[in-house]
Amino acid sequence: MQQRSEETKARILDASVKLFSNHGYNTSSVDDICAEAGVSKGAFYHHFESKQALFLALLDGWLKTIDNVIEAAKDKTVPEIFMQITEAFPYIFESAGNHLPMFLEFWLQASRDEEIWQASIAPYRRYHKYFTSLIKRGVEEGSFVEVNPEVASRLIVSMAMGLFLQSLLDPKGAKWEKVARESATMLVNNMMSKEE
Amino acid sequence: MQQRSEETKARILDASVKLFSNHGYNTSSVDDICAEAGVSKGAFYHHFESKQALFLALLDGWLKTIDNVIEAAKDKTVPEIFMQITEAFPYIFESAGNHLPMFLEFWLQASRDEEIWQASIAPYRRYHKYFTSLIKRGVEEGSFVEVNPEVASRLIVSMAMGLFLQSLLDPKGAKWEKVARESATMLVNNMMSKEE
Repeated sequence: MQQRSEETKARILDASVKLFSNHGYNTSSVDDICAEAGVSKGAFYHHFESKQALFLALLDGWLKTIDNVIEAAKDKTVPEIFMQITEAFPYIFESAGNHLPMFLEFWLQASRDEEIWQASIAPYRRYHKYFTSLIKRGVEEGSFVEVNPEVASRLIVSMAMGLFLQSLLDPKGAKWEKVARESATMLVNNMMSKEE
Repeated sequence: MQQRSEETKARILDASVKLFSNHGYNTSSVDDICAEAGVSKGAFYHHFESKQALFLALLDGWLKTIDNVIEAAKDKTVPEIFMQITEAFPYIFESAGNHLPMFLEFWLQASRDEEIWQASIAPYRRYHKYFTSLIKRGVEEGSFVEVNPEVASRLIVSMAMGLFLQSLLDPKGAKWEKVARESATMLVNNMMSKEE
């Protein structure tokens, strides 16, 4: 039963990505998504409170790659954790390609609803906190040079969001996975103690 | 006569910023902008081909601060140029605050029109080229460490766009001018030769 429920949820998520990217966020209704996924409206609302909640779940799923790497690496040294995140980071761009209008429409709707808005900007605040504490640990254990953890974390999160925005605005302008890997590696190498 | 024409243009630009940020890009018509600016439609179309062209002019004006600094600094050494850009960079955030919906609406429209789209992403491509050649010069003259200019330039542009996106998404989440200054300084310092 649990398994079937998870399959239904996955089907709804798959169907919504397909509809949102092909027809836009605004024009794809909950009815459309249910029809595409072959599920009842009851099943939809069992899993998601609203279309906006569904979009937030898509965002979360999409960031899950990074979260899983962070979780799996938590007992390693700080440079090792960074290296593993740097390896995983480019993969979030694969799912972003050509999805600009979908993001714009969602953000535009979200910007008019305080609760949805707070939920949609929560991940980037969470990553800022996470990197601040990780860099602090790196400086304390001596594997990182003496940087201001708060500032260095802003720099990392800004780079990630800037790469993401560019990959949305100009999907064919560069090989974004490659650019992401190279930029992240350069930034992390710059922060690592040369004596290591 | 030239002066009066420039004044008219400036009045249209001022009126459009006011309307776009208060009422949105989509709902503010050319008629509304003319009424707000106290100019005729003929005067509007003398200066701007369309509402989209007007928005592109706003973007250009907004990046002008950076362009002016780049132009004024062009005969200085590479670290000096970077320092001056780093000083000027935070000021572009002052005008960005609370303007998210305006940008989203414009981008959404622009994403459906290839010509407008190319024009709206031109600045970031231009900055990528500029920083690549500047960093190359810095490495050649020995004031910068041996970095890959292409990658380092991506990192700089990504940081700038990420900061810009965050300041739009979360205007009250941080003092973005301060964050921008600190992040840019850290990034440039990391690239500068320690022997200098």
